Amino acid sequence: MGQATRVSLKDLVRAFGGELLGNADQEITGISTLTSAGPTEIAFLSNSKYRHQLAETLAGAVIIGLADRDASSLPRIVTDNPYAYQARVSTLFNPLQRPLAGIHASAVVDPSAQLGVDVAIGAHVVIGPNVHIGDRAVIGAGCQLGDGVEIGPDAFLYPHVVVYPGCRIGARGIFHAGAVIGSDGFGFAQDQGQWLKVPQTGRVIIGDDVEIGANTTVDRGALDDTVIESGVKIDNLVQVAHNVRIGENTAIAACAGIAGSAVIGKGCRIGGAAMIVGHLQIADGITVSPGTMVTKSLTEPGTYSAIWAAEPHREWLKHAAQLRRMEELSNRVRELEKIIEALERKPS
Amino acid sequence: MGQATRVSLKDLVRAFGGELLGNADQEITGISTLTSAGPTEIAFLSNSKYRHQLAETLAGAVIIGLADRDASSLPRIVTDNPYAYQARVSTLFNPLQRPLAGIHASAVVDPSAQLGVDVAIGAHVVIGPNVHIGDRAVIGAGCQLGDGVEIGPDAFLYPHVVVYPGCRIGARGIFHAGAVIGSDGFGFAQDQGQWLKVPQTGRVIIGDDVEIGANTTVDRGALDDTVIESGVKIDNLVQVAHNVRIGENTAIAACAGIAGSAVIGKGCRIGGAAMIVGHLQIADGITVSPGTMVTKSLTEPGTYSAIWAAEPHREWLKHAAQLRRMEELSNRVRELEKIIEALERKPS
Amino acid sequence: MGQATRVSLKDLVRAFGGELLGNADQEITGISTLTSAGPTEIAFLSNSKYRHQLAETLAGAVIIGLADRDASSLPRIVTDNPYAYQARVSTLFNPLQRPLAGIHASAVVDPSAQLGVDVAIGAHVVIGPNVHIGDRAVIGAGCQLGDGVEIGPDAFLYPHVVVYPGCRIGARGIFHAGAVIGSDGFGFAQDQGQWLKVPQTGRVIIGDDVEIGANTTVDRGALDDTVIESGVKIDNLVQVAHNVRIGENTAIAACAGIAGSAVIGKGCRIGGAAMIVGHLQIADGITVSPGTMVTKSLTEPGTYSAIWAAEPHREWLKHAAQLRRMEELSNRVRELEKIIEALERKPS
Repeated sequence: MGQATRVSLKDLVRAFGGELLGNADQEITGISTLTSAGPTEIAFLSNSKYRHQLAETLAGAVIIGLADRDASSLPRIVTDNPYAYQARVSTLFNPLQRPLAGIHASAVVDPSAQLGVDVAIGAHVVIGPNVHIGDRAVIGAGCQLGDGVEIGPDAFLYPHVVVYPGCRIGARGIFHAGAVIGSDGFGFAQDQGQWLKVPQTGRVIIGDDVEIGANTTVDRGALDDTVIESGVKIDNLVQVAHNVRIGENTAIAACAGIAGSAVIGKGCRIGGAAMIVGHLQIADGITVSPGTMVTKSLTEPGTYSAIWAAEPHREWLKHAAQLRRMEELSNRVRELEKIIEALERKPS
Repeated sequence: MGQATRVSLKDLVRAFGGELLGNADQEITGISTLTSAGPTEIAFLSNSKYRHQLAETLAGAVIIGLADRDASSLPRIVTDNPYAYQARVSTLFNPLQRPLAGIHASAVVDPSAQLGVDVAIGAHVVIGPNVHIGDRAVIGAGCQLGDGVEIGPDAFLYPHVVVYPGCRIGARGIFHAGAVIGSDGFGFAQDQGQWLKVPQTGRVIIGDDVEIGANTTVDRGALDDTVIESGVKIDNLVQVAHNVRIGENTAIAACAGIAGSAVIGKGCRIGGAAMIVGHLQIADGITVSPGTMVTKSLTEPGTYSAIWAAEPHREWLKHAAQLRRMEELSNRVRELEKIIEALERKPS
Repeated sequence: MGQATRVSLKDLVRAFGGELLGNADQEITGISTLTSAGPTEIAFLSNSKYRHQLAETLAGAVIIGLADRDASSLPRIVTDNPYAYQARVSTLFNPLQRPLAGIHASAVVDPSAQLGVDVAIGAHVVIGPNVHIGDRAVIGAGCQLGDGVEIGPDAFLYPHVVVYPGCRIGARGIFHAGAVIGSDGFGFAQDQGQWLKVPQTGRVIIGDDVEIGANTTVDRGALDDTVIESGVKIDNLVQVAHNVRIGENTAIAACAGIAGSAVIGKGCRIGGAAMIVGHLQIADGITVSPGTMVTKSLTEPGTYSAIWAAEPHREWLKHAAQLRRMEELSNRVRELEKIIEALERKPS
């Protein structure tokens, strides 16, 4: 479908499934939160703890979970995943806005580049030799694609994305402004107190349906490639170092860093500002909490954490000092144990 | 005033207040530190612990606090806030250098854009439809302003700032190179092991007198807006996620991250590399120390901290091991308590 | 030498030294890892723990250390630093690819700029007044060089590097995409609840042979300069604040932050995501572990660490709670000590 402006509940359920209760012909013109929605909008309840908002909403209809099926008398769509459902409905009303196809007069496109049908190349774009751009891809203003870069069909690059030579981006990728793909990995050999640069001759290979956040950086491999598999979502200001491999559908929140040659499994969730040390293996489905530093491979499923949570400054000072006095405390306990042992052995 | 090249102490005090001691006609040609200033420059002492530098300075005049009023015999301006005073004097000699008004021939400006008087549009800028740019604003080379963006009067965008469609920047804002305003928030719904994108339909609304650092990213809201109030100062490489709200005159140092829907009060100071978890509330005037991870709302005024400060590697290894053995230590103490209790009860 | 495509072991040893064992006329066409190399490639063993790979490699020759001299019967070069040796060989086959000299028609170059011989200026570059560019330097597409910037000979700027007015980059520097050099330091004076901007009038001065990663930011000094000495290597997304000074040949990994006026010695290694607080001094040769926050000057050589390493979430919850109960534990131990003391004094 193109962009919807008005759709009936009946049509939504036909497209996306779910159980429809109440007026099936109710038409809606958009989606909003329970607290902001108006009478022609549909709202959603994805967490039962906000159920009280149902009573007060002015929404014309709601999307709710099975557990909340009867918590409203509004026209409603009942589904086992209201949050995913609202994502689909919202996408119907707010599809990605693709500019008109065409090549802006100010773009510099090498004659050897191959452009698919209906691509849109923005102003001041630079496209190098032997680049291949898939059908309907959008290359935003000021993007720079190096020699031999491949961009999949329906990919969408926002302004100022830089893709270094030889790197590949799959179909439907979304790359936000300032993302840099394929910069040199941080590889230097120490030689008599100086650093010798190790050429970074690998590439970055990115699968389909990957989203990369603003100003995020992904380094090319040293000899082999850096690989981001399909369905991976990476937030803003994330660093992905050389030879990292990220498994399908893993999500990485902002400010995280993945050091060189780390291998992250499929379906992992890496929290904001988490750091993964180089050469580690993270098994499929693992969750790393925000701000957590991972220093050893994680092979068992589960959630891993390690932060010192903010506390009032004086409390923190005390706790930090105590942490440094633990050895002394441990020694004092050992001393007490010895004395007690002696006391117990002493004939009374 | 325009850029000053020579000004008397008398004129400074007339413009900025303070008590003038010594030769009121002394002219100065610039401002510098106590250790670098020459005889036609004015220096400043903003921290009494550097008072010994007063004796050795070659400066022609000094700006000093009330407590240091008589610590120098140089011509001097006495004020209750020498650091703010020097900021004003320095700004007099070093105003923001605005390029000449005009639109560079290589800029691509949509005909529907409305430009105020005396705006300066740099080379290779791209300005989309329905953009509104206030009087005297400067749009640096290579900046990209999406559809419907509004830029307030006297705003100054350094090169390569990207503002996504629909976002608003207030008057006198200073945006450094590579800043990205309005990229999509990191919103995805899990659906059978894959991630469904949730359209990010909110905007970024930024007040007046806001400064944003180089390569900092501010995401647009999911449904409602991301809001940065007037007077906020944000350093380089900071991430501001979707639906965050930052209160007036709050300052955020480099490498910090503010997760989604966090609400930060007015006049807060967030240290470098500090991280605020999503959906928290930080009350007005709170200070978060550098490197501190905030995981719960902070409602009481004060300073909050939580870092493990660097120590020699062997010490750290020991402390880290002890932290993991605390349960054992605690059990040993419990055991001792039981024994002691028994010993004390034993008739002697 | 230019780019090699085929070279004999004899020639390699003539150029780079080392002991040659086996067929000196063996020709190689490239370099790879032990596990990927083919019969016309040379591979390397830089860590004896991978010595088992020597037995299985299909490589035509190997570079190995003194300790592994006899661990292979392949034609081989024996050297005391195999990793540095392979860097040299790899550079022979994979030199930095410099584009043809010339100025792209879309570049905007101020007539007062001075360009050395054989410089290459990419598309949509903007070069301000009085810029000086050394011989053979490469300025990638979309780079922005402010007034009076100086770029040394053989420097290589990838696309979208921004250098603010007055900054200097030495010879052979490599600057990755999106790096920002010379943005304003984060300097504000508090004045009645508001922030007054302190003009940042210093510059950034960068020595020779410096490499700066993608989207890294280096702020200009407030009054004096920010200085990065020769041979320094900085990874992606690193923040270098105003008035920082970084000594020769120091390496800083990704996501690190160096706060204002910190002075880092020569030959230091700063791990990824490490943070150095402002105004500290770090002595020559110090290593700071990844993720470590440095809050005091480090004057003694050595490695410094301070992280809480990831652990299973339940373990972490327990340890975090125990850390907060240490005072209580300490008090209980004190109580036991008093009781024991009393028991011991009691005449039995």
